[in-house]
Amino acid sequence: MTNNKRIQLAHGGGGKLTDELIRNVILKYLPYQPELLDSAIIENVGEKIAFTTDSYVVNPIFFPGGDVGKLAVCGTTNDLAMAGAKPLALSLALIIEEGLEIAHLERIMQSISQFAESASVKIVTGDTKVVPKGQADGIYINTAGIGRVLPQAKLGFDRICEGDKILINGTIGDHGLAIMAMRENLSFQTTITSDVAVLSQLTGELIETLGSEIKFLRDPTRAGIAGVLNDIASDAGVNILIDESRIPVNSSVKAAAEVLGFDLLNVANEGKFVAVVSERSAEQALNICKKFPEGKLANIIGQVESSSESPAVVMKTSIGGRRFVQKPYGEQLPRIC
Amino acid sequence: MTNNKRIQLAHGGGGKLTDELIRNVILKYLPYQPELLDSAIIENVGEKIAFTTDSYVVNPIFFPGGDVGKLAVCGTTNDLAMAGAKPLALSLALIIEEGLEIAHLERIMQSISQFAESASVKIVTGDTKVVPKGQADGIYINTAGIGRVLPQAKLGFDRICEGDKILINGTIGDHGLAIMAMRENLSFQTTITSDVAVLSQLTGELIETLGSEIKFLRDPTRAGIAGVLNDIASDAGVNILIDESRIPVNSSVKAAAEVLGFDLLNVANEGKFVAVVSERSAEQALNICKKFPEGKLANIIGQVESSSESPAVVMKTSIGGRRFVQKPYGEQLPRIC
Repeated sequence: MTNNKRIQLAHGGGGKLTDELIRNVILKYLPYQPELLDSAIIENVGEKIAFTTDSYVVNPIFFPGGDVGKLAVCGTTNDLAMAGAKPLALSLALIIEEGLEIAHLERIMQSISQFAESASVKIVTGDTKVVPKGQADGIYINTAGIGRVLPQAKLGFDRICEGDKILINGTIGDHGLAIMAMRENLSFQTTITSDVAVLSQLTGELIETLGSEIKFLRDPTRAGIAGVLNDIASDAGVNILIDESRIPVNSSVKAAAEVLGFDLLNVANEGKFVAVVSERSAEQALNICKKFPEGKLANIIGQVESSSESPAVVMKTSIGGRRFVQKPYGEQLPRIC
Repeated sequence: MTNNKRIQLAHGGGGKLTDELIRNVILKYLPYQPELLDSAIIENVGEKIAFTTDSYVVNPIFFPGGDVGKLAVCGTTNDLAMAGAKPLALSLALIIEEGLEIAHLERIMQSISQFAESASVKIVTGDTKVVPKGQADGIYINTAGIGRVLPQAKLGFDRICEGDKILINGTIGDHGLAIMAMRENLSFQTTITSDVAVLSQLTGELIETLGSEIKFLRDPTRAGIAGVLNDIASDAGVNILIDESRIPVNSSVKAAAEVLGFDLLNVANEGKFVAVVSERSAEQALNICKKFPEGKLANIIGQVESSSESPAVVMKTSIGGRRFVQKPYGEQLPRIC
């Protein structure tokens, strides 16, 4: 290892210093990987694969419940899970700000290693760039992922029809509020913790058990469940009715949302999925969720009402009224993931 | 399209503005793609795939011969090509600085579209983030790629042995010097143009024609041919002797390197590969290269000498001496790709 305790621009130059950084800091946490090759070779991937990518530019890079590394592994494996796939391999591309403490990079790598193991996925290829101080705000991480689509998966907007149930695997808004509470330096009675979690085991079991009864899966990240439900309504051409009283929410998250003026339906989640399930299998899907730690508080929050020319999402409020749920227009919470 | 001519933070929020940016600016240049899905599904990929990633943080984002978008497509498809694979699909993850002119983003997308077509590869999945002004220096792009490994490919350090020839497909140093000349505002008699190019057609034909006679391929990007040759020497445990007079160099590049004090062996290339070819097939490999525009100036620049306990790269200089060629230590040219 170099004696310097901070990342220098030269660590990104592709020479010996880059080699040292990769061998001594990055590969230390990927012990199955003798070298992080320019291209990895993967055999027997199966005939149908899912392929996805996301960049993670969250600020701050460490937050209650996780860090940018955990987010980069969970976010990308979750995107594969939402496509009905079992994650197989990830790429890991780091854009590091000059001056980042190497100890911080090590914490992030440890987190990447830990959650890649939880998701049963290997980091097989990577890239490291260093940019001048003032750019990249510590570190940006891009992960791309490859997964094997489960043969039982039959997911698509076109499969959604009247009577289908809308299921969520737990409380909403935790990730977005954990980040915002930290940025705004708010303290509540309890710390708000991000929900960032690996979802592929849970969605894998749902698909393997219920097959085509699971009609659609999506993780409500940047635009929250309002974003996902509106996408479902417009792309499937249906109305969706949800019941506010059935949506799980942590009380401290609710309080923080009120203080900060956020609508929790628009707030990002990183360990949640919205599933559209056939009416007859909805209870069984719920029971499967409850077997997993990340599905303990799962609930059926609504249903698909009828196809419609101007599809909408409507919420029955806790006090008995009804309101339209809109997809947010622009930025509510910048740099949440 | 939004009326604003510059990217706003809200374009990255995941709401309607993000949808508009993706539909009206990004997908406009990817006409085969009805929507840029969170995960793409790819069928019949074959049993053995190559998987790679790179982030592109080049400064400036437009330069003679290309831009960051062309670089992102060529760089990643070239990494697949170096693994003996035919590129199949790319992901495209944009990290955009708030305030980037949308017209600039359009130019970059057009370039991505054009060179993806040259490489016969489709952009199948993506992600868009926006970061505050001052970060990301215009735009950073990450591409990950999947390719089908050609059945004839038998590449590896372990296949390299005494007598093998070292081939390069053209002049060295053009990319690095084009960037540096622009940054330093140097003017020479002729503009120095980056060599950034798609290499997969050429390497595909080499492998399909010569099979296991092609023993190793690598693109000399960040640490130049000095980096690649030293990696070959140390990982294969051999000595390499190259002949300076046989290394193709553009005269304006040579002049610029002298002015700026760079050793061209360490300078990045973006449209070059170094191939290790069996002695008996080296001439045929050279003839194949010369059929392609990106191989017109190809040459055999040296050979593998003998296995060695302390492997080294030695260059016979133009004036008849010999010198060791070292892998550069740290940063020579920051943010070259």
